[in-house]
Amino acid sequence: MPPILVRHASLPGQPASPAAAWARYEATRRLTEALAAPLGPEDQTVQSMPDVSPTKWHRAHTTWFFETFLLLPGLAGYEPFDPAYAYLFNSYYETVGDRYPRARRGLVSRPGVAEVTAYRAAVDRAMADLLAGSSEDLGFLLELGVQHEQQHQELLLMDAKHVLAQSPLDPVYASFPTSAGPGTGAAAPRPHGWWAHEGGLVAIGAEGPGFCFDNETPRHPVYLQPFELADRLVTCGEWLAFIDDGGYRRPELWLSEGWATCQAEGWQAPLYWRAEPEGWSIFTLGGRRPLDPAEPVCHVSYYEADAYARWAGARLPTEAEWEAVAEQLGPAGLGEGEGFLDPKGPAAGAPHPRPQPAPTLVGDAWAWTSSAYLPYPGFRPWAGGVGEYNGKFMVNQQVLRGGCCATPPGHHRPSYRNFYPASARWPFTGVRLARDERSAR
Amino acid sequence: MPPILVRHASLPGQPASPAAAWARYEATRRLTEALAAPLGPEDQTVQSMPDVSPTKWHRAHTTWFFETFLLLPGLAGYEPFDPAYAYLFNSYYETVGDRYPRARRGLVSRPGVAEVTAYRAAVDRAMADLLAGSSEDLGFLLELGVQHEQQHQELLLMDAKHVLAQSPLDPVYASFPTSAGPGTGAAAPRPHGWWAHEGGLVAIGAEGPGFCFDNETPRHPVYLQPFELADRLVTCGEWLAFIDDGGYRRPELWLSEGWATCQAEGWQAPLYWRAEPEGWSIFTLGGRRPLDPAEPVCHVSYYEADAYARWAGARLPTEAEWEAVAEQLGPAGLGEGEGFLDPKGPAAGAPHPRPQPAPTLVGDAWAWTSSAYLPYPGFRPWAGGVGEYNGKFMVNQQVLRGGCCATPPGHHRPSYRNFYPASARWPFTGVRLARDERSAR
Amino acid sequence: MPPILVRHASLPGQPASPAAAWARYEATRRLTEALAAPLGPEDQTVQSMPDVSPTKWHRAHTTWFFETFLLLPGLAGYEPFDPAYAYLFNSYYETVGDRYPRARRGLVSRPGVAEVTAYRAAVDRAMADLLAGSSEDLGFLLELGVQHEQQHQELLLMDAKHVLAQSPLDPVYASFPTSAGPGTGAAAPRPHGWWAHEGGLVAIGAEGPGFCFDNETPRHPVYLQPFELADRLVTCGEWLAFIDDGGYRRPELWLSEGWATCQAEGWQAPLYWRAEPEGWSIFTLGGRRPLDPAEPVCHVSYYEADAYARWAGARLPTEAEWEAVAEQLGPAGLGEGEGFLDPKGPAAGAPHPRPQPAPTLVGDAWAWTSSAYLPYPGFRPWAGGVGEYNGKFMVNQQVLRGGCCATPPGHHRPSYRNFYPASARWPFTGVRLARDERSAR
Amino acid sequence: MPPILVRHASLPGQPASPAAAWARYEATRRLTEALAAPLGPEDQTVQSMPDVSPTKWHRAHTTWFFETFLLLPGLAGYEPFDPAYAYLFNSYYETVGDRYPRARRGLVSRPGVAEVTAYRAAVDRAMADLLAGSSEDLGFLLELGVQHEQQHQELLLMDAKHVLAQSPLDPVYASFPTSAGPGTGAAAPRPHGWWAHEGGLVAIGAEGPGFCFDNETPRHPVYLQPFELADRLVTCGEWLAFIDDGGYRRPELWLSEGWATCQAEGWQAPLYWRAEPEGWSIFTLGGRRPLDPAEPVCHVSYYEADAYARWAGARLPTEAEWEAVAEQLGPAGLGEGEGFLDPKGPAAGAPHPRPQPAPTLVGDAWAWTSSAYLPYPGFRPWAGGVGEYNGKFMVNQQVLRGGCCATPPGHHRPSYRNFYPASARWPFTGVRLARDERSAR
Repeated sequence: MPPILVRHASLPGQPASPAAAWARYEATRRLTEALAAPLGPEDQTVQSMPDVSPTKWHRAHTTWFFETFLLLPGLAGYEPFDPAYAYLFNSYYETVGDRYPRARRGLVSRPGVAEVTAYRAAVDRAMADLLAGSSEDLGFLLELGVQHEQQHQELLLMDAKHVLAQSPLDPVYASFPTSAGPGTGAAAPRPHGWWAHEGGLVAIGAEGPGFCFDNETPRHPVYLQPFELADRLVTCGEWLAFIDDGGYRRPELWLSEGWATCQAEGWQAPLYWRAEPEGWSIFTLGGRRPLDPAEPVCHVSYYEADAYARWAGARLPTEAEWEAVAEQLGPAGLGEGEGFLDPKGPAAGAPHPRPQPAPTLVGDAWAWTSSAYLPYPGFRPWAGGVGEYNGKFMVNQQVLRGGCCATPPGHHRPSYRNFYPASARWPFTGVRLARDERSAR
Repeated sequence: MPPILVRHASLPGQPASPAAAWARYEATRRLTEALAAPLGPEDQTVQSMPDVSPTKWHRAHTTWFFETFLLLPGLAGYEPFDPAYAYLFNSYYETVGDRYPRARRGLVSRPGVAEVTAYRAAVDRAMADLLAGSSEDLGFLLELGVQHEQQHQELLLMDAKHVLAQSPLDPVYASFPTSAGPGTGAAAPRPHGWWAHEGGLVAIGAEGPGFCFDNETPRHPVYLQPFELADRLVTCGEWLAFIDDGGYRRPELWLSEGWATCQAEGWQAPLYWRAEPEGWSIFTLGGRRPLDPAEPVCHVSYYEADAYARWAGARLPTEAEWEAVAEQLGPAGLGEGEGFLDPKGPAAGAPHPRPQPAPTLVGDAWAWTSSAYLPYPGFRPWAGGVGEYNGKFMVNQQVLRGGCCATPPGHHRPSYRNFYPASARWPFTGVRLARDERSAR
Repeated sequence: MPPILVRHASLPGQPASPAAAWARYEATRRLTEALAAPLGPEDQTVQSMPDVSPTKWHRAHTTWFFETFLLLPGLAGYEPFDPAYAYLFNSYYETVGDRYPRARRGLVSRPGVAEVTAYRAAVDRAMADLLAGSSEDLGFLLELGVQHEQQHQELLLMDAKHVLAQSPLDPVYASFPTSAGPGTGAAAPRPHGWWAHEGGLVAIGAEGPGFCFDNETPRHPVYLQPFELADRLVTCGEWLAFIDDGGYRRPELWLSEGWATCQAEGWQAPLYWRAEPEGWSIFTLGGRRPLDPAEPVCHVSYYEADAYARWAGARLPTEAEWEAVAEQLGPAGLGEGEGFLDPKGPAAGAPHPRPQPAPTLVGDAWAWTSSAYLPYPGFRPWAGGVGEYNGKFMVNQQVLRGGCCATPPGHHRPSYRNFYPASARWPFTGVRLARDERSAR
Repeated sequence: MPPILVRHASLPGQPASPAAAWARYEATRRLTEALAAPLGPEDQTVQSMPDVSPTKWHRAHTTWFFETFLLLPGLAGYEPFDPAYAYLFNSYYETVGDRYPRARRGLVSRPGVAEVTAYRAAVDRAMADLLAGSSEDLGFLLELGVQHEQQHQELLLMDAKHVLAQSPLDPVYASFPTSAGPGTGAAAPRPHGWWAHEGGLVAIGAEGPGFCFDNETPRHPVYLQPFELADRLVTCGEWLAFIDDGGYRRPELWLSEGWATCQAEGWQAPLYWRAEPEGWSIFTLGGRRPLDPAEPVCHVSYYEADAYARWAGARLPTEAEWEAVAEQLGPAGLGEGEGFLDPKGPAAGAPHPRPQPAPTLVGDAWAWTSSAYLPYPGFRPWAGGVGEYNGKFMVNQQVLRGGCCATPPGHHRPSYRNFYPASARWPFTGVRLARDERSAR
């Protein structure tokens, strides 16, 4: 069993009191349940492809995380809710034990939704006991458990979207708000603006008191050439021009592996787009509706993003470039809203990328960067079992930056590194362009 | 529960009155719902492998069958319950239209169980209208719809068993009765007896007024050599001896393709068997329990059945041999009980093969025959869309005879031809031996 | 070239003297080398798909057969030519030992053609020693080795054709004769005739002194309904009509598994056909040339043959029907020529199906039958290692009858049972129609 | 047809005269033939896996490169040797036309070795004509053609090794020299030394007059932390300690994807190692022989290299670190010998990694770096068809540095970037360790 990690003296997100700790824990747990609520037992059971996990698995796995890393080592006398759950709900922690094969999660009908709900309730009760008597030592692991569950909130939504999309009935997860919202704007998108950066030595990575994942550290210098970064994401309307110009039929625009994938999969548009007699429709968490040219394009692979950038005479940014601009803009300049999971976000409606009327660096679709997901110089994984959280995935993935409409609040921070294989399309993945300074072009 | 299908003068399959027709229809529909009742929405959604269909799919598909072949052509003004259902719930009728890919049935969470229940109710109401005003023309198609749904009752059970088996929790579909029943008998099985048949020209196939599937016709002569047929199925205890004698490690016992499959799949025992420290256990619809050596072995492939027979110095019977013995024995000699779906069957408990204390030709596990599933001489498929019911599967499958514990009443008739690929293990498939007459051995 | 095998009193297959035995052995071996001669080392190395074996493998494997089953047990002091060859050139004899994976035969560059030639020569020398001193006991195994090598002569040709077809250069194995020969005849094919058979009890299978494979025995009665059998194979011209009538686009004509295969493989015509601007061309062992409508269609799967027959309002014959007609016609009535490997066959040119100007039951393309390849009643495999020759393949294959242009002389006998999976197209497989007697149609 | 590129004014490798150009061309072509000479037609035909190309394909493809990019656009009246060759021997140039599927190159027996030899001779004659009349414009493309063929010389050797390894005969490509050479030294390897680098801003990438590939440009600054780089490659003896310590059984040492691959492939040692009763043997181009603990470990994947480094308490270097050390050492410090293809290299014997008695940065096995293969800042692919040479492969590959025993002379330069997927084992891939400066560890 991995040791409990040593606390960090000044985590923010590390509540000052047991009551505050419980409040943060409880609010996170409650939001997960609220996100699952529109999904029936059937929806929560299906695994639509190996990369997707069933909703009830997400709900159980996040619970197992608290049970394994906090309750079992920390709460005297705690007995596992069900000994078989360690095998069923461990995701990838080799040091913790064997686990049910990931690609077969959708074959397990039992435990069902009701049992998972009971599991969550039992762990919540035990967590209340633990937190009531906790010392500050819990701070890091508690916050990690919260952050972990928050990450799974985003996964839950993007996975559920993929599940619902399998049905020819085009089912609705949640309705869009009746006023405003996506799909209504016929206005032309705002023209591209560019943020210029003069390059030189910059520092990237996390440092200081706030919580961060180990993969965001250590903060370190990087040397950049002068460059410019687009002040908004690429829109669906722009993507239509790419399609109309043969974007999906011209190998010279593509990476070799991307072209092979495009051919093998028969890609002709982003995921969830469908050609209808009257034009393109897209499937959203609010159901299927006509494409809105003003909204950011979403659900494209790295291969497509890279091909688009080449077609547009630009390129994708590196993650250091993105982060350098974020530092330059400062917190106030990142853009106003965060995603739909933010209490300050849209009051209702299905999470979906919204048009960006003003410049914003964070946004409703993750921006693919041209950076491979690799350790920062001097990177050290966390000690103990949670050291498997990030480091062991550092090969054959690309970094994404900026958050999306389903990203929980706080995860839009400039140093946050998301990562997916270049072929992934089911996350909320979009495109932000960059280009070399004019003199170098 | 439905009565055994009596051979009516006015058949095929046509009850004497609209009221009788409705009674038969309604009882069949009710039994399906009763069989699905122990399965929650999660259980009803999972497809554990491409050959398995979700329970809610079985419930909807059988409903679609009545809607497509009876209501739409026969009930004036009937509108489809949902136009998308024709695509979702057509199984394999090419002439009726496109359909959702079979291997992806488990990816569709919606329509869910409640919608399927509503679909069934709506079709039942329309069927009541149809039958209230029906002419005699409906007889055949109504009976076909009933027989079709009965076949899916068996499929529903064997598929649900496979689904439940994916969970490490070993869930229970239905409890075994507390008294008697499988798993309790430690008594040694009855020694093998043999029914001798002198061979010569026999007639096999269906003829006469009772309902039968097209693949059972026409009745025709077959010439047989003298032979003997075992008067019971091979037991688990006998199978243990095969295992202990290296049955799963000796290629000389196996067909070449069977050995390759055995190696590739890592077979070491029948499906659902598991080696425990204290001996073998088996997973049943009543949960996991210790192996009962007296009960018939079940869930073996044709490859295994064939290898076992070779090891035992015997062989598998042909379907003509099996049917010739059935004719020789006559209805009274076939054996007493039918399966668990028979009103005269076990009053309660999970369907599972029971020991055979007396000679019986039908039984609780289908007997693999050495006959390939081919058309009888002069075979003509039914006309119309239902002509796709049987004939187009007549290649690369083996015939099985005798019924199983999950077979609906009436389907144990001597001319009934079940069929599966040689690799199938998830149906209730067992082994009955045959051998040449002594002088030919 | 070898004579047609005469039925000897002292058989199975035993020539009257050591000199005659050697002559038969040597002629067979020489023919193999003659067939391989047009193929260079590169041609002899390639394995174009798992079912195909490289030419040099055929040459070595047939040699290994004599070494393993005759020299090692029978020639005192004989040492294996190379101990590694037993592993490399065993095909599927489990009782003889492990072997190199079949699907990887084309990855082995060494031993090369020269080493295989040396291996053949060394074994021939040892065989000469063995036969010089042989007792009568050798008769069966020697004849089996000869028959085995003859079978591989046909395999060598059909495999080499598939290999050569992979090159866009359309290479030539051997030239067609300048006069006459395939491709020149524009004459319309002879109209179909039908041989009628009155049905009833017939006997099929081999019996008597001549050599036969174990799978041809025992001779046994079969009861047939009255039927008719076409007196020639289906022609390419007739197949064109099937294509033009949507044969490859109409699922109602196909077995379910056949249609799935047709769709998955994108079949639109027989193997080796190619649509050219000016019409269809076909690839032959003589290179690519325009399709001759008068020649028998070849290189079709069972699925296609079955669909064609259904489209034509007929059906495929059973193997018993085919053999019953053969018996009825008698040796004189089978048709005159045998294949290109027959000393009395075409003097030169590449083996390829020739038009059939007169009624013939044997022919230049194997006729798919609707019979699954199963053991005859009372079948007993040969004793010892050679018992793996035939019996263990008796599942999921269809029987073919009648021989082809590449069949060695003697293998056209009425009781000979060829067999392939229903999807096979690379053998010389064609179609002969049957139909029920008029009154039953 | 792509335009001829504009010459670079001062390429080295760009000979001063037509005679010198011809000499360089001819020597390169001759070396290719010398490397193919020990391989017979069978060896030259086999493709042992999709990543491997047949020797005769390498010989033809390099010839096609000269034909396509120099002769067709540059030599008046030149006609293609065979129009089908453009389809057969194009590797991946989408802008030039369609091509035969890569994974099926080993299925093409014709054109054979003799035809390829004739093709090479014909193109050589035409190249002589072209060079005799050439202006300086040819310089870049000629040099590119030479460099391209040199790269294929290394591929030819590593591919041929993989082909020969498929035979259980353990065939020999070329003999090791009788004196000295690999396999003879039982001496303990030299202890590790470390080169320290103080970090800071360094410049990497190519610049200046010499030939380089586009992916080596532009030269640009990179900021490094202080680090140390091992002064030799990891040895087989050290790898044995990794194996003995459970290196292939401990998931905590591996990247997640690496561990999955290790499990799926059953890796227990580097490629070409085999456990014998008396210890490990390795397959080499000189045949199979006992493992020499003093020689550098070779034929390991990135996953294994990364796991080893973690086990050793070190890490892999970045490509910038490797190149910074190379700059620090200067040409004289890189190490003395280059590979076996260097005229100054070993006089004879099979290319194989040799022990490193003195510190050396280049070596006989490529060093995996932790850097993903990505474009340098400001990277521009070459214009025209040759622009597909490098850039389109910049995803999901790792950079390797330092050359190997089969690397042609000149390709060991500090800025040279080799790249392979993380799973590749068949190139001559080894491991060089790095570590953070002590204070950071």
